[in-house]
Amino acid sequence: MQSVYNFNAGPAMLPPEVMEIAKDEFLNYKDTSMSIMEMSHRGTHFLEILNTAEENLKSLLKIPDTHMVAFFPGGATLQFSAVPMNFLYGDEKAAYSLTGVWANKAFLEAKKLGYKVESIFDGKDNSYTEVPTEFSPETLEEFKYLYITSNNTIYGSRYANFPKGKNLHLVADMTSDLLSREINVSDFGYIFAGAQKNIGPSGLTIGIVQKDLLEKKKSVVPMLLDFKVYFENKSLYNTPPTYSIYIASLVFKWCIKKGGISALEKINEEKANMLYTYIDNSDYYKAPIHKNSRSTMNVVFMLGKPELVKKFNSEAEKEGLHGLAGHRDVGGLRASIYNAMPIEGVKKLIDFMKSFKDNNI
Amino acid sequence: MQSVYNFNAGPAMLPPEVMEIAKDEFLNYKDTSMSIMEMSHRGTHFLEILNTAEENLKSLLKIPDTHMVAFFPGGATLQFSAVPMNFLYGDEKAAYSLTGVWANKAFLEAKKLGYKVESIFDGKDNSYTEVPTEFSPETLEEFKYLYITSNNTIYGSRYANFPKGKNLHLVADMTSDLLSREINVSDFGYIFAGAQKNIGPSGLTIGIVQKDLLEKKKSVVPMLLDFKVYFENKSLYNTPPTYSIYIASLVFKWCIKKGGISALEKINEEKANMLYTYIDNSDYYKAPIHKNSRSTMNVVFMLGKPELVKKFNSEAEKEGLHGLAGHRDVGGLRASIYNAMPIEGVKKLIDFMKSFKDNNI
Repeated sequence: MQSVYNFNAGPAMLPPEVMEIAKDEFLNYKDTSMSIMEMSHRGTHFLEILNTAEENLKSLLKIPDTHMVAFFPGGATLQFSAVPMNFLYGDEKAAYSLTGVWANKAFLEAKKLGYKVESIFDGKDNSYTEVPTEFSPETLEEFKYLYITSNNTIYGSRYANFPKGKNLHLVADMTSDLLSREINVSDFGYIFAGAQKNIGPSGLTIGIVQKDLLEKKKSVVPMLLDFKVYFENKSLYNTPPTYSIYIASLVFKWCIKKGGISALEKINEEKANMLYTYIDNSDYYKAPIHKNSRSTMNVVFMLGKPELVKKFNSEAEKEGLHGLAGHRDVGGLRASIYNAMPIEGVKKLIDFMKSFKDNNI
Repeated sequence: MQSVYNFNAGPAMLPPEVMEIAKDEFLNYKDTSMSIMEMSHRGTHFLEILNTAEENLKSLLKIPDTHMVAFFPGGATLQFSAVPMNFLYGDEKAAYSLTGVWANKAFLEAKKLGYKVESIFDGKDNSYTEVPTEFSPETLEEFKYLYITSNNTIYGSRYANFPKGKNLHLVADMTSDLLSREINVSDFGYIFAGAQKNIGPSGLTIGIVQKDLLEKKKSVVPMLLDFKVYFENKSLYNTPPTYSIYIASLVFKWCIKKGGISALEKINEEKANMLYTYIDNSDYYKAPIHKNSRSTMNVVFMLGKPELVKKFNSEAEKEGLHGLAGHRDVGGLRASIYNAMPIEGVKKLIDFMKSFKDNNI
């Protein structure tokens, strides 16, 4: 059993099996006496990694032929700019559902760049404790796309179900829950996800686009924010972040070995239910997010005695439970329990919470 | 002695001492039982790495207080868009010196984005065998900046000396030679360098900017291409590529241990001179670049019998000499001998070239 559990919100824990393989291959990839980090992105070894990563991701998420995959450098923030630049033309408008910090940033960025965007939900009204359960189709009709953050890492909320609509192009920042639950890729026009939660190291972003959305091209988009260029060059327009893609490729293989997304989803629900159930029954801890909107990835909870948060954290650290501090905008505590977090980590956290409660009642 | 030498143009060989440390720390960074890849970018461990990396880079390049440093995600190509977006306002114009593929791409990108840019040197006229030795100050007067590629990885040419001028803002893509030779940072308005040659893994770019160039801010720049945002947030506006920055931090320490840039430059010149001297005296191999413009990082050479290039490469591979194929736009052969390439690697290459010549005369 592990002695240390890493509840960081991201960069986050990676599967120990993946890290062991990466360490073994670190100096000598497949008997080349070279690290994969030192090899050309156009050489056979890396191309094999890139192609296998793409195939495995397609198989894990059952990505249909109507969609294509790319591995971008940088984080999701760069996508906040790229999304309107690539999808809005002329007078077209987009709707944004503002369920947290990241959706707000994406909205403000699109606005700043001069695009016509409207907020159709503002979580500020309920202190970000709930995400919308549905939008009326009429509301959405006039918009080219609806932008959502599928899981809100900071507040610990998520869409249990995704908005649907005829002709709706759903654009989703899935940074903190891609690969954690089954999704129907056909329902999305564009999905992107920074890697540093369930996928790999920071500095890599996965993009999955509905091909026909790339048809019209705006020539003023900076080259590397131009989805048409990036997707059609199969992530090799310029030198991609090769080592990060290598780690992601190992994570995809690990996901397949674990039984795929449905199996991972089941475990994720079990972990989250265990933790929320304990919190709800505790009379000492409190989960502020409405039950219909609770994230299975980021479990945010408060102490009845907020002055004890610091003490909770420092004692948790001593027990080998790391990264539990809440985000600076929210306070309280947050356990990020991504795919790589084993159920034993959550059990150990609950045991610690029980004894902390007993000692600090 | 190593059995394998990696002459890849980039991603390229990293110092073996750096890779050993990274492997040792891979699963357990400073007794945390966690990888640095799994830690928060706002945690003490990573912040210490980031700050030390910045301090060491400043010390290596003697970066004055007039300039600041940032670590960007992605490669240099993203900078091709960012440079005009950040430095050109209203009617301002920029001059580009087109010494190779990358300068051409940067020029076309600025043009595509609608900026006023002019080519003041076109290497096409001499088949990219020479870079300009000087520009008349009058030529440069009307331009906000002069854009150069300090070392042309593909053609194997470089500026032995950099253009100077009163009020000249020199913008240099130093992807393939930053840290390989002494430079006077004060002579540059902006320097950027993709990491994958002398610095670290691909997916990271170093930026060094003259602070007063950031004063005027254009609000239409995408957030992460906005130098003011990125530099002033000290590379932490969003999650940076933490693991790549960690490797870069180890490389900077290694450079200091090796005696700093002046010591590395001396070895680089020795390696390059040894190789060019052998080529020039061989009557069998030919270096197409003019002597005044030859790169010390990328030594491009041709075979008198071009039909033997494939054979040369496959026999070199068998001898443990990897990555010697010339770029697809140039053909021939290319030995990339960055900081991490030991002199023994170059000697082994020359020995191989001698025996290949003897066997294929």
